[in-house]
Amino acid sequence: MTTKAYGAHAADRPLEPLTIERRQPGPNDVQIEIAYCGVCHSDLHQVRSEWPGTLYPCVPGHEIVGHVAAVGDAVTRFKRGDIVGVGCMVDSCRTCPACAEGLEQYCESGFVATYNGATDDPPGHTLGGYAQRIVVDEQFVLRISHPQDQLAAVAPLLCAGITTYSPLRHWRVGPGQKVGIVGIGGLGHMGIKLARAMGATTVAITSSENKREAARALGADDVILSSSRAEMAAHSGSFDFILNTVAASHSLDALLNLLKRDGTMTLVGVPEHAHPSPNIGALIFRRRAIAGSLIGGIRETQEMLDFCAEHGIVADIETIPMQDIETAYSRMQRNDVKYRFVIDCATL
Amino acid sequence: MTTKAYGAHAADRPLEPLTIERRQPGPNDVQIEIAYCGVCHSDLHQVRSEWPGTLYPCVPGHEIVGHVAAVGDAVTRFKRGDIVGVGCMVDSCRTCPACAEGLEQYCESGFVATYNGATDDPPGHTLGGYAQRIVVDEQFVLRISHPQDQLAAVAPLLCAGITTYSPLRHWRVGPGQKVGIVGIGGLGHMGIKLARAMGATTVAITSSENKREAARALGADDVILSSSRAEMAAHSGSFDFILNTVAASHSLDALLNLLKRDGTMTLVGVPEHAHPSPNIGALIFRRRAIAGSLIGGIRETQEMLDFCAEHGIVADIETIPMQDIETAYSRMQRNDVKYRFVIDCATL
Repeated sequence: MTTKAYGAHAADRPLEPLTIERRQPGPNDVQIEIAYCGVCHSDLHQVRSEWPGTLYPCVPGHEIVGHVAAVGDAVTRFKRGDIVGVGCMVDSCRTCPACAEGLEQYCESGFVATYNGATDDPPGHTLGGYAQRIVVDEQFVLRISHPQDQLAAVAPLLCAGITTYSPLRHWRVGPGQKVGIVGIGGLGHMGIKLARAMGATTVAITSSENKREAARALGADDVILSSSRAEMAAHSGSFDFILNTVAASHSLDALLNLLKRDGTMTLVGVPEHAHPSPNIGALIFRRRAIAGSLIGGIRETQEMLDFCAEHGIVADIETIPMQDIETAYSRMQRNDVKYRFVIDCATL
Repeated sequence: MTTKAYGAHAADRPLEPLTIERRQPGPNDVQIEIAYCGVCHSDLHQVRSEWPGTLYPCVPGHEIVGHVAAVGDAVTRFKRGDIVGVGCMVDSCRTCPACAEGLEQYCESGFVATYNGATDDPPGHTLGGYAQRIVVDEQFVLRISHPQDQLAAVAPLLCAGITTYSPLRHWRVGPGQKVGIVGIGGLGHMGIKLARAMGATTVAITSSENKREAARALGADDVILSSSRAEMAAHSGSFDFILNTVAASHSLDALLNLLKRDGTMTLVGVPEHAHPSPNIGALIFRRRAIAGSLIGGIRETQEMLDFCAEHGIVADIETIPMQDIETAYSRMQRNDVKYRFVIDCATL
């Protein structure tokens, strides 16, 4: 199926209109007409070859929402007209221990990414959600139960939402706990909303004095300016868990010292340049841990979407036409977005 | 009580015979005639002021075994003649949440170290086990049930033993698990024995080809030479838990890649110079963690001693007279010890 899309032919070329092919839906496939697609930092890194291995043409986009236009004969969970989503993965081996546990993001063969992943479909690698439509196996399609008028703001849940939800759940964040969210961007603003909805006392930790009010508005119970020694000292040793969403290189030590004994700080961003080496003493003297977490599995992504629908949680977004993507990337690089751009794919 | 000891008057002075004062046993005190004291790397770091804050005169030693010579009126758990031990701590606040949980090593006021700790006794800081006797509150005295002829080899359990036992227990090492022990020295050789006794498949990871046979002799099911890419690759992603006993600066990345998804590598040594900054991607893409752990609490130290007695576990040691301590330090710095020096305190 000929499909309008937006993508780049090379790392140094701007995104432009492309015509791509989508496969005809097979027996297990769901054909989705894309309504909205969120703009993730990964899109920019991949399309500009800031990460290795980008295949061109590159069509980014892995925060996809839309409606079902057709389903294959064997599809049982979706029907034409359903509102659905697709996140960072469109397939995995489905047989390894990780897949068997519903943790496809840790598939031992590597999951198939929504764009730049391995596929037999033309052109030999997957093409993402900056497009009119996509065809995905039903096992990797999510059901969306938010009100239809929130659909654009639901799109970022498929990556920013699950990337923060999964570690908050894995490290059992809940009532009675004090949880820190480092960074108030696309990921962090979701982390604040989710940790709060899980019942934790939620504290935003930011290096920007001017984000203090914004963090409160997102639901943070308190805000710590990480550059303030006094504020950091006042919270020393008091956090059960810290979710660190900042990928830019930064010292972890002062943040580690915010953790209680047995506390964990989990990072969800791979820094382009290594963080300064963390102080091992800060781990040893309080039995603390530094951990990492990657998006979330399909089952957990569905759980997250249902949780968000139940709690009225969506992302804070700015909707843009497809043609403005380069401007959006530029603004994103300047952190000039509250907190996620979402492409209105009708503008294709 | 006037007591013969060995210690240093300054960082650049050798250890020499000293005469120190021990307090008369108070109601809750146990007076211990020291039979043996293990020689820990910490002793050397502290007495040479390689760690900050050393107070002089400094009498090191926190792997102490001996027999009870006298007890205070209120002592209920020990009597004259009992074989007992003292480890790294001789007191703590006893009221903070950590102490209440039996985790005195994480006392929020800081535990009182066996040497160089705060005390009202002269000379105003604690003096350790390179001495004829020591007086310790019964709450910090351990019962030893090993055969009497193993007493010298029990001494290192009080630090090297508990430092490895505690993280193995905390991260629930046991049958069906594959556990790596990095470094085959004073700590690592105990880690191998303990992990094996806990029922785990125990793999020693060493940078020294010539330690391969020694690791097998200690009970390792397998040995990996960390400098061998082929050996490391063969074990990639296969470990449930890694206990890293190496304090010298080294890259953590290849070791992290040995862990399964959700695996933890726990460090027990603070490096003098920082390790190269770990690859955060190695954490994120398998939800791995780097953690730290500090000795163990008093309750757990007793549990460890009982476990070792039950399983016939002691340290591999070389007994030395007190007068040979400087030679022992020199050999320790060259890693020329299998695996712990223990001072025969009768030579004082």
